[in-house]
Amino acid sequence: MEDKTQGHQPKNIVESTKSWARQAWAHLESVRQASPLIQCITNFVSMDLVANVLLSAGASPAMISCVEEIPEFTPKTHALYINVGTLTADRLPGMMMAAQVANDCNKPWVLDPVAAGASGFRLRACLDLLKLRPTVVRGNGSEIMALFKGSVDENSKGADSTHESTDAVAAAKSLAQSSGSIVAVSGAVDIVTDGQRVVGAKNGVAMLQKITATGCSVTALIAAFVAIDPSRPFEATATALSIFGLAGEIGMSKANGPASLRTNLIDALHGLDRTTVLQHANVSNI
Amino acid sequence: MEDKTQGHQPKNIVESTKSWARQAWAHLESVRQASPLIQCITNFVSMDLVANVLLSAGASPAMISCVEEIPEFTPKTHALYINVGTLTADRLPGMMMAAQVANDCNKPWVLDPVAAGASGFRLRACLDLLKLRPTVVRGNGSEIMALFKGSVDENSKGADSTHESTDAVAAAKSLAQSSGSIVAVSGAVDIVTDGQRVVGAKNGVAMLQKITATGCSVTALIAAFVAIDPSRPFEATATALSIFGLAGEIGMSKANGPASLRTNLIDALHGLDRTTVLQHANVSNI
Amino acid sequence: MEDKTQGHQPKNIVESTKSWARQAWAHLESVRQASPLIQCITNFVSMDLVANVLLSAGASPAMISCVEEIPEFTPKTHALYINVGTLTADRLPGMMMAAQVANDCNKPWVLDPVAAGASGFRLRACLDLLKLRPTVVRGNGSEIMALFKGSVDENSKGADSTHESTDAVAAAKSLAQSSGSIVAVSGAVDIVTDGQRVVGAKNGVAMLQKITATGCSVTALIAAFVAIDPSRPFEATATALSIFGLAGEIGMSKANGPASLRTNLIDALHGLDRTTVLQHANVSNI
Repeated sequence: MEDKTQGHQPKNIVESTKSWARQAWAHLESVRQASPLIQCITNFVSMDLVANVLLSAGASPAMISCVEEIPEFTPKTHALYINVGTLTADRLPGMMMAAQVANDCNKPWVLDPVAAGASGFRLRACLDLLKLRPTVVRGNGSEIMALFKGSVDENSKGADSTHESTDAVAAAKSLAQSSGSIVAVSGAVDIVTDGQRVVGAKNGVAMLQKITATGCSVTALIAAFVAIDPSRPFEATATALSIFGLAGEIGMSKANGPASLRTNLIDALHGLDRTTVLQHANVSNI
Repeated sequence: MEDKTQGHQPKNIVESTKSWARQAWAHLESVRQASPLIQCITNFVSMDLVANVLLSAGASPAMISCVEEIPEFTPKTHALYINVGTLTADRLPGMMMAAQVANDCNKPWVLDPVAAGASGFRLRACLDLLKLRPTVVRGNGSEIMALFKGSVDENSKGADSTHESTDAVAAAKSLAQSSGSIVAVSGAVDIVTDGQRVVGAKNGVAMLQKITATGCSVTALIAAFVAIDPSRPFEATATALSIFGLAGEIGMSKANGPASLRTNLIDALHGLDRTTVLQHANVSNI
Repeated sequence: MEDKTQGHQPKNIVESTKSWARQAWAHLESVRQASPLIQCITNFVSMDLVANVLLSAGASPAMISCVEEIPEFTPKTHALYINVGTLTADRLPGMMMAAQVANDCNKPWVLDPVAAGASGFRLRACLDLLKLRPTVVRGNGSEIMALFKGSVDENSKGADSTHESTDAVAAAKSLAQSSGSIVAVSGAVDIVTDGQRVVGAKNGVAMLQKITATGCSVTALIAAFVAIDPSRPFEATATALSIFGLAGEIGMSKANGPASLRTNLIDALHGLDRTTVLQHANVSNI
């Protein structure tokens, strides 16, 4: 784990990175103390990892997704997370209803548009959810491009991206402006924008892409961070991405491959301390 | 792993604890030898861990849940496990049917009323299942309180408890009397009651609460233990809780956090030997 | 990890085994380079492991299963994997449609008939899928026997087998002839047949049976191998079984039980190198 805050960066960027690192620690500490209740309507592949990541960070996940329960349960939560992986027609009404209830109760909610460009059905579902103005949208380059263009991706690789995040910066800014949501694009560097500001969260390791549902899980973590700082979703999104990536870096140091990295990442997220976050969380202007 | 059977306890309690430990070993050995077939209708978050815990204990899990198969398949099983996490209206009829078929065939069945108090829909589903008289009901303090009171929990944290197990002893006894079921309440000490007797299963570590589906998994293990000693569900419930908690204690000794604890717990459950169980299984009157 | 290619085998068998090992390495290398997109319609217990095994092998999994998306998405994939575990009536039409679309587009597809003999409903579903002529069918001894006989298994243990793979050789050959599919039977030795040829893939360790979804996962890996060598599904099936078993052998060397074996297996699959595969992949005539 290289100390990315040192080196040849100009002093004002170093200062800004330090300020982001303090923010990241404050957010993580707040999640641990408040243990926000995060309702997760997420895909079946990701449920185990999403729940374990939230628990390790100190949040309290609840996988309640049916229309019979949402009107009563969503108002009790601190944030809502919707993920369209393994979408089926019978799960969509619950997603739409939960987003609407969250809006009615002024609860933040976060959208993960998994494989948005894989089919017209999926794209329309994502665009319909986007109209309900999620607080944050996080996807990979291909997913954000599909939402921005509003068109199906003929080269879709499902949940895997065929675009780099940096290619998607202009699309992300534009999407943030039109949707009113914070937009995050995962990649070698994670990009976060509110349509005006753009920052990069630079923690993380490439092997995270070889573990299923890491994208889903970091989006859930964003929901937990937004839950404890709902008036500053731009900041909460950037710090959540940084904290998750940092846990990945620590996990990687003793990993033998993707499965031990997954185990180590969760352990590291649970054990992250102030000193490590202040030294290594790496968010900066881009 | 401290030897909790020693110390300042009166001799008759020590004797009783030793007797429970012998019972725990006998039950585990019997599961390993008989490899009972346990039908699991469980939530989507827990399926992986539930199946792996049952396999590691020596049982044979089968995740068959649809109404087309239950009349034919449930009679072939040795016990049924029903868990209402990730409940939806279309999964409830299979749960009700399976419980009814299990009753018709004199198969034991075990209920995990996950987040029973989270909504009226969920509470009614749990109360309807309770009328079918499960052999055992295991929940956390909040879940057992919701069933006992028959009312929704305004402070529900979903699957996480806001009550300690010891607070729920009176509710558990009363629920056991009215339902005819063995009632178990998980917590720092796990409580088991048949409405008259009350014992505490004291194995376990706090970090288990930071792993999703450990509650679901120990309830599945109860089903496996009840399967091989169906006439003594009170005893089988207490020993299953103790064995699972003991595997957690062993797993904790080398864990770096929740994910390595999860791995170690399953490995420990698979490898548990007679000496360790006799020395460390810790069930006693309360 | 014993070198099973040495010892008392006649020279022509050793040569053949070496040739199979070269083939196994070529297939794995090709999956890593081409990263084929594998559509997985698989059961809920297995989704996490299936996705992680495919990712570790270098393939790209996509868990898209609904009828609204299949006509558009299946033609973009390189192979389709269908697994009937956790079958429900509402998931079956997607399976049938996807298999049909795969056939229409000349995409290979692979069937895992989990617990085929557990009920009449499940057996009929499997036989209906079989009529759509999967490129490969992989099951355990009991599952292949149920398909061959076309009858429900009164002693069904769900997804667990009550037959050894070698008992099922005649049934597998006959099923391959009548179905036109390659048939693989997992067991202490994995058997692969096209109805004429029969080979055994001898890598693997017994403890894999104590981890849920290892059978599902190796079938998904077969789909990835067939995707990159679609004209030779017999060979691709045998090499996939060998590579998965070899990763299990390597994983076992440092495992403390089923859960650490699972972690190590995925890590080993990701890290497998040419020398190890050439020395230890063990496929031979039987």
